[in-house]
Amino acid sequence: MKKTAQASVLMEFNKPLKLQSYPLVDLEPGAAIARVVLAGVCGSDVHLQHGHYPIPLPNILGHESVGVIERIGSQEIRDLSGQIVHEGDQVLIMSSIPCGQCYFCRVLAQRNLCEKRFVYGVSKSAAEPPHLSGGYAEYMYLRPGTGLVKIPPGITPEEAISLGCAGPTAVNGVLYQTKITAGDTVAVQGSGPVGIAAAMIARLSGAKKILLIGGPASRIHFAKKINLADWYLNIFDVNDPEERVKRVLEQTDNGRGADVVLECAGFPVAVQEGWKMVRRDGKYLVLGHYTDKGAIMLNPTIITQKQMKIFGSWAFVEPHYLKYMDLIPLFKRSFPLIEMITFFPLSEANQALQAVEKGEVIKAVIRP
Amino acid sequence: MKKTAQASVLMEFNKPLKLQSYPLVDLEPGAAIARVVLAGVCGSDVHLQHGHYPIPLPNILGHESVGVIERIGSQEIRDLSGQIVHEGDQVLIMSSIPCGQCYFCRVLAQRNLCEKRFVYGVSKSAAEPPHLSGGYAEYMYLRPGTGLVKIPPGITPEEAISLGCAGPTAVNGVLYQTKITAGDTVAVQGSGPVGIAAAMIARLSGAKKILLIGGPASRIHFAKKINLADWYLNIFDVNDPEERVKRVLEQTDNGRGADVVLECAGFPVAVQEGWKMVRRDGKYLVLGHYTDKGAIMLNPTIITQKQMKIFGSWAFVEPHYLKYMDLIPLFKRSFPLIEMITFFPLSEANQALQAVEKGEVIKAVIRP
Amino acid sequence: MKKTAQASVLMEFNKPLKLQSYPLVDLEPGAAIARVVLAGVCGSDVHLQHGHYPIPLPNILGHESVGVIERIGSQEIRDLSGQIVHEGDQVLIMSSIPCGQCYFCRVLAQRNLCEKRFVYGVSKSAAEPPHLSGGYAEYMYLRPGTGLVKIPPGITPEEAISLGCAGPTAVNGVLYQTKITAGDTVAVQGSGPVGIAAAMIARLSGAKKILLIGGPASRIHFAKKINLADWYLNIFDVNDPEERVKRVLEQTDNGRGADVVLECAGFPVAVQEGWKMVRRDGKYLVLGHYTDKGAIMLNPTIITQKQMKIFGSWAFVEPHYLKYMDLIPLFKRSFPLIEMITFFPLSEANQALQAVEKGEVIKAVIRP
Amino acid sequence: MKKTAQASVLMEFNKPLKLQSYPLVDLEPGAAIARVVLAGVCGSDVHLQHGHYPIPLPNILGHESVGVIERIGSQEIRDLSGQIVHEGDQVLIMSSIPCGQCYFCRVLAQRNLCEKRFVYGVSKSAAEPPHLSGGYAEYMYLRPGTGLVKIPPGITPEEAISLGCAGPTAVNGVLYQTKITAGDTVAVQGSGPVGIAAAMIARLSGAKKILLIGGPASRIHFAKKINLADWYLNIFDVNDPEERVKRVLEQTDNGRGADVVLECAGFPVAVQEGWKMVRRDGKYLVLGHYTDKGAIMLNPTIITQKQMKIFGSWAFVEPHYLKYMDLIPLFKRSFPLIEMITFFPLSEANQALQAVEKGEVIKAVIRP
Repeated sequence: MKKTAQASVLMEFNKPLKLQSYPLVDLEPGAAIARVVLAGVCGSDVHLQHGHYPIPLPNILGHESVGVIERIGSQEIRDLSGQIVHEGDQVLIMSSIPCGQCYFCRVLAQRNLCEKRFVYGVSKSAAEPPHLSGGYAEYMYLRPGTGLVKIPPGITPEEAISLGCAGPTAVNGVLYQTKITAGDTVAVQGSGPVGIAAAMIARLSGAKKILLIGGPASRIHFAKKINLADWYLNIFDVNDPEERVKRVLEQTDNGRGADVVLECAGFPVAVQEGWKMVRRDGKYLVLGHYTDKGAIMLNPTIITQKQMKIFGSWAFVEPHYLKYMDLIPLFKRSFPLIEMITFFPLSEANQALQAVEKGEVIKAVIRP
Repeated sequence: MKKTAQASVLMEFNKPLKLQSYPLVDLEPGAAIARVVLAGVCGSDVHLQHGHYPIPLPNILGHESVGVIERIGSQEIRDLSGQIVHEGDQVLIMSSIPCGQCYFCRVLAQRNLCEKRFVYGVSKSAAEPPHLSGGYAEYMYLRPGTGLVKIPPGITPEEAISLGCAGPTAVNGVLYQTKITAGDTVAVQGSGPVGIAAAMIARLSGAKKILLIGGPASRIHFAKKINLADWYLNIFDVNDPEERVKRVLEQTDNGRGADVVLECAGFPVAVQEGWKMVRRDGKYLVLGHYTDKGAIMLNPTIITQKQMKIFGSWAFVEPHYLKYMDLIPLFKRSFPLIEMITFFPLSEANQALQAVEKGEVIKAVIRP
Repeated sequence: MKKTAQASVLMEFNKPLKLQSYPLVDLEPGAAIARVVLAGVCGSDVHLQHGHYPIPLPNILGHESVGVIERIGSQEIRDLSGQIVHEGDQVLIMSSIPCGQCYFCRVLAQRNLCEKRFVYGVSKSAAEPPHLSGGYAEYMYLRPGTGLVKIPPGITPEEAISLGCAGPTAVNGVLYQTKITAGDTVAVQGSGPVGIAAAMIARLSGAKKILLIGGPASRIHFAKKINLADWYLNIFDVNDPEERVKRVLEQTDNGRGADVVLECAGFPVAVQEGWKMVRRDGKYLVLGHYTDKGAIMLNPTIITQKQMKIFGSWAFVEPHYLKYMDLIPLFKRSFPLIEMITFFPLSEANQALQAVEKGEVIKAVIRP
Repeated sequence: MKKTAQASVLMEFNKPLKLQSYPLVDLEPGAAIARVVLAGVCGSDVHLQHGHYPIPLPNILGHESVGVIERIGSQEIRDLSGQIVHEGDQVLIMSSIPCGQCYFCRVLAQRNLCEKRFVYGVSKSAAEPPHLSGGYAEYMYLRPGTGLVKIPPGITPEEAISLGCAGPTAVNGVLYQTKITAGDTVAVQGSGPVGIAAAMIARLSGAKKILLIGGPASRIHFAKKINLADWYLNIFDVNDPEERVKRVLEQTDNGRGADVVLECAGFPVAVQEGWKMVRRDGKYLVLGHYTDKGAIMLNPTIITQKQMKIFGSWAFVEPHYLKYMDLIPLFKRSFPLIEMITFFPLSEANQALQAVEKGEVIKAVIRP
């Protein structure tokens, strides 16, 4: 193993990342070193680059990572399923480590709500040891408590990373918060990575009919190509929101509305439209609103009159991450996961970020 | 039994009710005649009087009724708990009869969502037989399938009707949709009949702390008098919504927010404030928005970031009604139910409606 | 339409059915006449023939039916989804009509628990009008309130009936009572019609791994042929129950046990074994114990120590029946439904019953 | 603060505890020292004394403790609600510390199922530092991660400990696993500490009627004295199990059975009887079977035919412990908590154990 590792580092906000070299430090008990095989580029990395959140600099971005375990500290490590992790194992590396002590970790047992989570590619400056805390690098230092999932035989690292953190995010939202039942009619608002992941999970869970409302045309084209849904609406083709709602309702049983509507768009206006697409006693998930895009006019009487159930879902943590890995072989049977990915070398991390920012790719992945 | 019955009848919208006389018709199998002992005056009766909904005229208002069974048709009748109903029994009379055949009745098994429900005091003209389909009358004709609950020994008719339809409405919202757990901190927005009923149910269910946000002063005064909550905020005393939110949060564990917030106010602005009062992973019930009071600016990012669960609740039906009766002896142990009521004779139904419209009474009840 | 209809009738218990002719009577409002296209032969029909339950004789057996609507009474009929039913429509005919008035129908809203359900092929003597109350006949008289589901385009009557009443029975048990989540490891005990239906539903719902424990060899052979599960255990190959449990546990993540175990075997000993196959905090469904096969030694400490959740599931009613129809197109994508069926003409109803009794067929269906 | 602490120590199984002295060691970060104010004596302490479980010796028993914080290590400590813990604070001390790393801690988020939990009064030998790991002592060493709950003003230490670990055990079983709804008819099997706690929680949660089935007479007498239930059955007065079931059913609505039955007896035969007391679609909790008392004849057809839901519940962890503290002020309003306790000085720990073993006391508490 090398003694230093290259990384593509955010030195200043709104400036291109720069290749830097950092030493590989000694391992504390419970820690490990992974050679990064693949590092996903998330839409939020673009926000981080632009300084939309106060992160310490210099910072090695990258919170979606597949690695090979190269060295393990003095203590045995187990993956989330309880299997011992050995050197040479290929693993998915969970993005965050909850504190384990706060009200959300211990009492609510909703570790995804932990307010002191350590997040790879976000929380720590690369200037301080152990330096290598992001995926855009040759190596990562895996702190004690990092959630790892061994990639099972028959699954490639590329498949494992193909949905990025949108995968476990949608697992929390769709399977844990909203809970869908086989036979449901499911409308998905949004055709980006979260919408794609949500639709795939709905498909796997036995949705009777999936209605995809998204855009632009290139995304709808891709969705059709992989047979993601049963019906598609490009919002740029139908400008009138009422008309969009009408068309969606027409696709549902007796026009009653979808059993479940999954908002994965991230625009408040989607919520306005989406509430009208749900049938009475149906469910609505607000999954896309990580970022505050502001308020919008919403009518609470719809909630009462429809006896709606509305769910939010924030991030993900161990159960969602392990479940995500469990689903990948099933995704693979129905969808060509790898076709979603465009690869970039570590030296082209900036191009990868730009491709994501411009929406030129479905999923950008760095191969260090 | 008399051959005719007097009733206080809405002949024209926005005009006072008039006393009229109608014949008692023969009973079809499954039907019964009840002498009306008490008839609650609901806030929605005021809306009906003003023609806010298209109901047939002439109309005998009144959908909250306690009666004594005077005559039973050729078929045995059982109450909701399965007990045989005999002549002379005192019964609570459920306001609506679902159709039993539609998707909501048979498939969703949410009969409260039935779109073809017959509603006493609403659905039928008094001009047509069986004429007596509302509570503001000496007698009511109980159609086959009417939900009855025998009033158990130890409970007076006055206690049984004291919460009117706000009682079972709150049962559906609080116990069936939202589900609260003993030890929860519960904030209630609204101090009218629905808010009072919701707070009582929260108390019964073991709420650790009940925060009542309402007004005007007379209502808060009454709430304090019956020891309805653990803390009170008169919204007219604190005009700034942010300040109101701040004060509520201060009353919650470590300022995290209420475990459950129950909206019983009926004003969209309450929802805006209320979402800010819920703790992360907490629950919010929109119970007060029967009537469309319009849209308001709401920010969906709150739902995602808090991982909130929002529930609507529409009306009530048999399970909620029987449960409501089951709770009355428990309410009675903690609260002086009868103090809520102001009584009016049948001849003063108009005065009762006015007292409700002006907010001069907590609960108006006609004693025919 | 003919004026009389032939039917294969149980005249005496333990005697062969006999062909008889009955008149088609006039229709009351809400009723209809269906020409029977297919009539499933259920295992419980064998019990009925042997007089294990007190049913009136003569009796036209058959509670699993597909028909074509030939005549409709004076009142509009809608199917469970709310669509108007027209003459000529092909429909699945639900086996039972709940009373709509009892505690289970109105208060619990669990119409499948109704104790006064009318059941086709069971409840009524063929000697009394309307005579034709069972599926083993050319025509059926459909009483008001019968649950119908139109068979959608693309689905044949044969596919619609292929799982018989095992289909909606498993829908209630697996989707409504137990609720499985995509990614679950699911063990199914039993490889008869209910076990097959349960495994198919688990597959549709995204089970990660399905372990089928059943027998005899012919059933396991069939299950393998249609690719029903991911792993199979023929109980006749492994006589030692502890060894069977051990082998199942080996197939689960880290040997922790299955997330969900579905008992579809109908033998008490299966429950004894099955509790040992569940992981801690996992779920167990007792679906196969319609008939009382007696008690067995079971250790309650397992329930406490594992913090297990055990669910029962009784019969099915409208939601499960409509959901079943909704799932048929999905079943069809993965499984060759028609290969399960062996067809018999009406004149060979006795042969069909014998084939079911001897386990010679997966599913026997009469084509009148 | 003293430099050494006396403790009552189990030196050999089946021998009386002996007073021993141990040094107070230096504090690691996150640790604290508490002066023990009260130490509950649990029925399982009797089992431990008799060597029914393999625990290291010498061992300071006691896993139910109230203490005053005397010294805090170099790191800030927060209680489960998130409040900073200061020297001088009175706290409830949770009995166990989950590992935080295993499948049950991180993935299932059911930390009570952690198989590597450290348990005070059980897991560690007193011979090794930090020695003071049990409640039967003047001081306890509180390891990092210990769940503490500050005792709020108005609650005495005696009240806080009155239900011992039966309190949070019942919270998990009744509120988290089974979930009861206000208005439920609840039968409780068992009148020991767990049964008492379960009945109190049912009362708090708005149970309409509580049926207590227990014994011997002294326990029923105490239960009646504190008005624990609405109806009582001493099993020693009615020897025939069928007669007991019959009497319980007579107390339920229309003889349908209890909505919820809570088994807190710990005898397998109670499960046999209890299943017969549940109404169809009702719930049954197996809470009392911590210890393996063997199998018994149980009939699975009851589960199917009743569509029962059976829940197990194992131990408790942070959410249940904090909730328990939240409920104490509510318990206090209805029940004279302190009357349950018999106090013993530390020097009489053996007498306390004997009193528990012989059932001479409701709750024994050591006051060191």
